[in-house]
Amino acid sequence: MNTDTIVRGNERFDDLNLNNLKIIQNSDFFCFGIDSVLLSNFAKVKKNELVLDLGTGNGIIPILLSAKTLGRMFIGIEIQKECVDMANRSVIYNNLTSRIKIMEGDIKDLSSHFDNMSFDVITTNPPYMPNGDGIICEYNAKSIARHELLCNLEDVISGSSKLLKNNGRFYMVHRPHRLVDILSLMRKYRIEPKLIKFVQASLDKQPNMVLIEGVKNGGAWLTVSEPLIIYND
Amino acid sequence: MNTDTIVRGNERFDDLNLNNLKIIQNSDFFCFGIDSVLLSNFAKVKKNELVLDLGTGNGIIPILLSAKTLGRMFIGIEIQKECVDMANRSVIYNNLTSRIKIMEGDIKDLSSHFDNMSFDVITTNPPYMPNGDGIICEYNAKSIARHELLCNLEDVISGSSKLLKNNGRFYMVHRPHRLVDILSLMRKYRIEPKLIKFVQASLDKQPNMVLIEGVKNGGAWLTVSEPLIIYND
Repeated sequence: MNTDTIVRGNERFDDLNLNNLKIIQNSDFFCFGIDSVLLSNFAKVKKNELVLDLGTGNGIIPILLSAKTLGRMFIGIEIQKECVDMANRSVIYNNLTSRIKIMEGDIKDLSSHFDNMSFDVITTNPPYMPNGDGIICEYNAKSIARHELLCNLEDVISGSSKLLKNNGRFYMVHRPHRLVDILSLMRKYRIEPKLIKFVQASLDKQPNMVLIEGVKNGGAWLTVSEPLIIYND
Repeated sequence: MNTDTIVRGNERFDDLNLNNLKIIQNSDFFCFGIDSVLLSNFAKVKKNELVLDLGTGNGIIPILLSAKTLGRMFIGIEIQKECVDMANRSVIYNNLTSRIKIMEGDIKDLSSHFDNMSFDVITTNPPYMPNGDGIICEYNAKSIARHELLCNLEDVISGSSKLLKNNGRFYMVHRPHRLVDILSLMRKYRIEPKLIKFVQASLDKQPNMVLIEGVKNGGAWLTVSEPLIIYND
């Protein structure tokens, strides 16, 4: 397919440096960052598993996971119509329509789209900031991706708990300052935290990201990995 | 005081390499480790504050904090009579009777010893292992210090919540694999986790200790420090 016909208006076409994959992004919307790349490396997806990505944005996580794993099908759900449209065009361009499906939908209304206990794995890079933190000018595309305006952490975790199979796995990237909320809510909704890995820029800097694996109805034993240090002398 | 009269039977007299302080220990009981030393460095005690150490053992934490801070009074409570006796003799030997008081008592019955909301700071190095984990031969002195035989994490945190003043501070050292229990119970009993610091032997090893600061009725924002790496090239 010709890139002239697939990229529109303010959009750009970025190379993912992996299997010749490309992704359509638009700087008027949320563009993917290192957090999505780290989450797609952290998540374990086994052969033939069915994977759901909540708040998939431009589809970066399903696209990366489809290349890195042998999962059968990756479904991304996203509330912003323009992102769904961009993500779908990236899936078509990359010839991934047999393994990735992007849907428009609301994380607060997952049960209207999916059966309970139907997914092996759920991934998510949700909005990090509670509604009311920081200055939000308006409900624009970027603030919806960054702040808990249209869904909050409890919506993400409670919804995931319903959709995961027993022993299904949940993978999330988030900010360390929300860790008490994260771990408390995961336990509340029976996605037991099993592994956390902090990410810090350098040895003497506080971590600014945390990667979390939980298991639906898993037993209580958390492993804390050594941190990932991005720039290490 | 002569050491011959203060050290008895299997006991030994260890130098703390701090202000000429010494401590009586007995290898038949739990001897202090690096965790108590790290906790006493991590805990912030301000001038004239009143501090309680739960499960004080041989009194290591009050003795170190009395040297490192300007706290007014350090009270240690311990259920094992033999430890209370050793701790009291260490306090006397070090001329600290005006600032440290060691009491025999049960963490599950703190309200019979202390008024609610009476402490500025509570410190604790509690038993790490849930009752039932690992092989416990008997209710001996060491297993009481290591396993939740006579009190569990919820007893420690719920008791601390009652005794701390509003905005009082709670400092604990524990194992990372219990982090979900720790953070969930602290929030449940309104000691909001504010700072955590992991301790790992080297850069490529998982942390094996975690230091936690909580604030009674504090607001929700957790800082995760960069880890403390004991052996760093």
